[in-house]
Order: sequence, then C-alpha cells, then structure tokens
Amino acid sequence: MSELTSLKIRFSEMGDRLAAPVITRLMAAALDSPELLSLAAGFTDTTTLPGGLVGEVVGKLVGRPGPPEYLQYGTNQGRPLLRNLLVRRLSEQDRQEEGVYQSNQLFIANGSQQALSLATQVLCDPGDIVLVERPTYFVYLDVLRGLGVEARCLPWDKDHRLDGEALEDYLERMERAGELERVKAVYLQAYYANPTARSLEPREKAGLAEALLAKGLRIPVIEDAAYRELHFENPPAASSVLAMPEFADFPCLYLGTLTKPFATGLKVGFGYCSHQGWLDRILFLKGQQDFGTSNFCQAILEEVLAGGQYDSYLPELRRHYHSKMQVLDQALREEGLSELGWEWEVPEGGLYLWLQGPQGFNTRIDSAFCHQCLMNGVLYVPGDLCFGNEVENRYVRLSFGVLSGNDLREAGRRFVETVRQLTPA
Amino acid sequence: MSELTSLKIRFSEMGDRLAAPVITRLMAAALDSPELLSLAAGFTDTTTLPGGLVGEVVGKLVGRPGPPEYLQYGTNQGRPLLRNLLVRRLSEQDRQEEGVYQSNQLFIANGSQQALSLATQVLCDPGDIVLVERPTYFVYLDVLRGLGVEARCLPWDKDHRLDGEALEDYLERMERAGELERVKAVYLQAYYANPTARSLEPREKAGLAEALLAKGLRIPVIEDAAYRELHFENPPAASSVLAMPEFADFPCLYLGTLTKPFATGLKVGFGYCSHQGWLDRILFLKGQQDFGTSNFCQAILEEVLAGGQYDSYLPELRRHYHSKMQVLDQALREEGLSELGWEWEVPEGGLYLWLQGPQGFNTRIDSAFCHQCLMNGVLYVPGDLCFGNEVENRYVRLSFGVLSGNDLREAGRRFVETVRQLTPA
Repeated sequence: MSELTSLKIRFSEMGDRLAAPVITRLMAAALDSPELLSLAAGFTDTTTLPGGLVGEVVGKLVGRPGPPEYLQYGTNQGRPLLRNLLVRRLSEQDRQEEGVYQSNQLFIANGSQQALSLATQVLCDPGDIVLVERPTYFVYLDVLRGLGVEARCLPWDKDHRLDGEALEDYLERMERAGELERVKAVYLQAYYANPTARSLEPREKAGLAEALLAKGLRIPVIEDAAYRELHFENPPAASSVLAMPEFADFPCLYLGTLTKPFATGLKVGFGYCSHQGWLDRILFLKGQQDFGTSNFCQAILEEVLAGGQYDSYLPELRRHYHSKMQVLDQALREEGLSELGWEWEVPEGGLYLWLQGPQGFNTRIDSAFCHQCLMNGVLYVPGDLCFGNEVENRYVRLSFGVLSGNDLREAGRRFVETVRQLTPA
Repeated sequence: MSELTSLKIRFSEMGDRLAAPVITRLMAAALDSPELLSLAAGFTDTTTLPGGLVGEVVGKLVGRPGPPEYLQYGTNQGRPLLRNLLVRRLSEQDRQEEGVYQSNQLFIANGSQQALSLATQVLCDPGDIVLVERPTYFVYLDVLRGLGVEARCLPWDKDHRLDGEALEDYLERMERAGELERVKAVYLQAYYANPTARSLEPREKAGLAEALLAKGLRIPVIEDAAYRELHFENPPAASSVLAMPEFADFPCLYLGTLTKPFATGLKVGFGYCSHQGWLDRILFLKGQQDFGTSNFCQAILEEVLAGGQYDSYLPELRRHYHSKMQVLDQALREEGLSELGWEWEVPEGGLYLWLQGPQGFNTRIDSAFCHQCLMNGVLYVPGDLCFGNEVENRYVRLSFGVLSGNDLREAGRRFVETVRQLTPA
C-alpha cells in the first residue's frame, strides 16, 4: 500500500509540527553497524535486570487464591495499594510525617515520561514558554516542540548552578518584552539529571522560587526525579519541591519512576500533584489517551515494594552502576581526555557522564567529530540536543548504563582516540 | 496542600476543555454502594482471566538462558516478532496472502485506545469534524470533545444500517454549508461494536467509501476492531477496510487489541496504518507521550501467540461470553422487558446488549429511571452518551462482561423491575 504515501493528508497543526527526533538518526546508525559500541542510549544494563525476582513475584501472584484481579483492567489513576506504598516512600525520602502526602494526589503513568507529557499538554498552548535547565532532558525539548511551546533556559552561574539573581533580571527583561504571560511552567531535573548527572541544591531551588515570586509568577513547577533512586552511595540530601516551604505557594508536580531503577520493561512511573485542578485534568486526559497503565505491571511492582524485594535489590544495582561509571571515567582519564582540554564532573548517581569539550570543539550530529566517532565505532549523544533556546556545540553525553566493563573501556578508548584525531595539533 | 486548589492555573485550551466524563459519576455511585450490581463497566470477567497461563509463560521467559531482555526498554514501535505475528494473524483474518500486510506498518500501543487517541491527535485541530457511527464508542466522543473536535453521526437507514445514499445527501449539505473542509476522518466500530454489538456489513462499508469518494473526500478511515476476536460462534465474515478494494484510495488505520480477549491487565493493543506519513506522525507522537509500551507485557503476548496458547484459550472464552450473554438476554425476556415495549437484537459477539426503550422513555443519567435503577441496585450506561451531534434518550447499554450468572440474572431482574416502575400504566 506504499503508493498511498503520495496521498496528502491534512494533519493537525501538531501533526505538522512533529518530526523524527534527531536521536533516531543515531539509533539507525547504530543498527546499521553491529560493531558499534553505543554510549548513547539511556538504557539500563540488561544483565542486572531482575528476571528471577519478577518470575518469583508473578508465581506468587498466580498462586494466590481467588480470581487473578491483576490481569483485569485497573483504574485510570492506578492501584490504590501501590499509590499508598509510593506515597509512604516519598514521605520517607522527603522526611515528611505520615499523612502530609496523600495517595489520592498520586497517579500511576506509563513511565514518568507519560506523566510529564500529560502535565504539559494540559498546561501549554502553542506560543507558550516553559523554563528549563541549561542543559535539560532532550526528549522533553521534543515534547515542547511538538506542542509548539518554546523552551527557555534558566540562567546559570559560572559554576553551572541555577542563578536566582540572574533569573530575576531575565524575568524583568521578559516582562518588558511582554513575554511573562506566556510562561506556563518550570521544568527541573533535580536529581542526577539527564544529561548532566548533577542534582540541584536546595539553595538553587529556593533561589528559583524567590525569583519567580518576585515577579508574581506562581506557575506550575514540574520536578522530574526519575534518577533519584539511582545514587551511588548516600541518598541525595535535598528534599523535593513538595517539601520545601519556598514552594508552598506553587502548584507542584513531582515525577518518579519505579522501573528505571528496577526493570524498564515494566514501564511504571508516577506523578504526585499538589494542585487538585491540575491533577484532575491530567487524569481526565489520561482517561482519554489510554485509561490506565498496565494493571499487571503495577501489581508486580506493588508486590516487590510491599515485600521489600525492591529495596533489597537496589544496593547491588547502585554498586554496579557506580563501578561502571568508574570504569568509563577512568578509561577517559587514562586515555588522556583531560589533557586534550575536556572537562567533566564525577557524578554521584544517575547513568551519565557529561563532558565539556574545549571552546570551539563541535560535537553536533552533523560534525566531522560525530562522523568520525561512527567510523571508529562509538556512539554518543551530541550535547546541543539538550539545550533549549541556546546553542552549545561542545558538549557530549555518555551513558554507562548499557555496556559491560570491557566494552565500556573500549568505547571510552575509541571516543578519546577520535577526540585526538579531531583536535588541532 | 489542598489550600492550593484555590490558586488559579492558566491551563491550555485543551486543559480548559477537559471535564470529568459523565461515566465517572456512575462509577463513583457504584463505589458508594457495594450492593449495586453493575451492568455498566465494559470490563471482562475476572474469573476467566488466564492467571495460570500467564504464570507459565513468565516462568518460561525467566527460565530462558541469557539476560532478561523482556525487562529492558523495548522500542517505540513495539517488539518485531510480536508485530510479525500480529500481521500474520491479521492477514489470515482478512484472507490476504502473506506479504500483503507488512509488519513495519504495524505498531504496538497501550491498548487500542492509545492508538486511537494518537491517530486523532495528529489529524484534528479544534473545530474539525470526525464522522462517527450512530451510536458510537462514548470514550471516543470524550476524546473528540477534549480535542475540540465535533463528532457528526453518519446517517442510518430504518434498519439501523449505514445509509450510503443518505450520506451523499448529507455531505452535499455539508459542502453547501462550507463544512466539508473540516471533515478530517471517519471512525468505525466494525465488529461487535461498542455499544450496539453489531458488525458492519461489507456493503455498508462499501457504500460509505462510495459516498466519500463522490465528494472527493479521501480522508483517513479509522476502523476499530477491538471486539473482532470476541465472536460467539463463527468468526465475522467481513474483512477489514484494509482488504477492501473500495478503500484502496483511503488512508486506513485498523485498530486491534490482544488484551480484551485475553487479559485486559496487560494493556497491549496495536494499529495497522496504510499511510506512511500518518504512521510516522503517530509514532513520533508516541515517542513523546511515552516512548513505547511495556516490553514485558508485549513479550508475554508474543509468547502466547507464538506458542498457540492464545488461540487455545479463545474458544472457551467465547463460549463463556456467549453463555453469559444468553443468561442476561433470557433474564430480560423472562422478566417481560419486551412486553414493556423494549427492543434489542441478540448479538453474535462482543460484551454488550443494546436496548431501545419505547418512544419517550428517558434513560439519561439525570433521569428518574437512572436514579431509580441506582436505588434498586443496578447500574447501566445511558445510551445518550454514545451519540455524537444527535440526542437520543431512550437507549441503554448493558454489559454482561463482569457479573457471574446469578448476579447477571438478578441485575436483569432489577433492571426490568425498574423499567416497570417507570413505565406509565
């Protein structure tokens, strides 16, 4: 039926805006070359995935007397017990007393990605603005583009920290340009962020709240904590915006996921929303877009959370990713990447190394460097994809999630070798 | 944080359009009265769900050597083997030769509902029109309302069949009113439809194609076949629009689901799209809204399809629903519903009885009848929810999916008892 492709459909405005994400071109390149080692995909390590444990839990569910309710439709908002367990977990992480967070404010989604998409759809029209970090999660930039929404980068100070004072100036300029009305939300990746692996300090978040309040902007704040549980050693000290008095006057949506740290194939994330009207609309929209996340996957996660296996499983996983991060970090250092003028921080959690090349180095997908990396059999995410309204061409995101130790070392070697080839003598 | 609810958020235009579906009020009523017998929910029968089989299959997956890839992220489009199996299955149902349908035209979604939502989002802007059956799937009417899209009912003849000639007149009138430009798609529930349980005959679909072509309207056709596998005895004779030469010039999207006939808790549906540009946009949007359906649920269904357990499971299920339909149908007859002026057809598949009350009988959610049904402990879906731009107040959808035999009989009895109370002597 391919001749039909010539038939022109009149798509919606959004349909016309949609385009293949740049990253697809990288993925296609990866499929074409099986020899390629990919440091690009933000996947987890398949060898660590808890096959046996999931098998046990399913066996337990199946063995239970009574009809298999876990194979029936669930509710649109998600399983009540799972939501209770998640609220309790979040309360502990935020050191809040029981009862401060309520399970009816929490909903289950197909990964935190769906929650993020729903929350943005009910807020933003074409032409609106969302404030994002610099850099930020590149798939969210795609979501915003799809909705016709402009991403504006929050100002950063010289230490790459959120700069509250500069933000006040920035908002002042926006106000003069008549743009303040269009600002609909702020999006933060507050824990071991994708792509920087950095966490926001409480003072950065507080400074953000202060600057927004100074302009009367009590706009929705979305805090994406997808990597919060993937710390290598100590858990992050900062509580979420839900627990910060500075954000008491803001509608807040906190996003988490159970499957990134456990088994991505189960695809269960959640959102906790402090504003009833916002939450209602998110749920109405979810009701239309799929009316509920797989009840079976929810039941499995409910079981491993309630039974403690989820928590027993995490420490080993954290050690595993910590050690993989060290392998890649060390490979880059031993191969001499620092001496070539590259800089990066050693992360304390997450799945990524975020590298800054020397001034003028170009890592874009259409750069000679990117081409040569493919030739040399290594794949990375070009950092420019992670910036909103600003262009930065010298950054690279490397993921140590997927590859095993030896492959990580070899991929690191190939990467530095390519940098050396492309660095002017 | 409930005091925050008073804080006004500026939502998107869609956010402002979203409202609680009427059906939620019914569901809430059901939760408030545990004694209530619900003939409303389109759920399947929990007692028939294949717990043991799913347990076995998961055991098999887990026992396989090698890392548990089924717990890793899948691709946005879905598992290749599962898509192959589905294309083969669809080819058989449509009696097409192998190779006519291609697996790269098929994508996996979170139930066929998600595929339907995605497909409509990329087509329709506010003010657009979608042609629907009369009556049609009420959740889709919610989807359209959410998008600001107008649902217009296709004309029906006196036998409740799609009337191609009347459609030509109708389109003629729309053309004169300058509305034809706004018509973006046609939506059909072609097999054991929700709510009527009727299937479209090939001549009805052909008449539709002819009427549209007469006006040069080669618009996208969405054929929702969620209940196609739930026939009671013989499989439906009609092939899908994909296989009908009359639709060769239309972009077609066929929607199916694996989980309605098997296990709704797994939430895996699919779409087959004959137009590449439409499919691309659906996939781009899915990439933004959740980038892929649970790989684990897909792996389970792939396994039961490939291993034949899916097909071994269906005949028993069909007998079960057939018998439940008969129980409810008979209860209504024995209690004397026909004598009270009500009419309905005995369905050959699906999960519903669609009842027509006498002229003037009001079954709306705010009617005395609906109120009295709640008082008498029985719940139904008011038929007016299933009509687009027309109002019809005398229809009722009853589902025999959930309740067991005795409860079905008792629910039928309560329903007819209430009809009797509300029927003028």
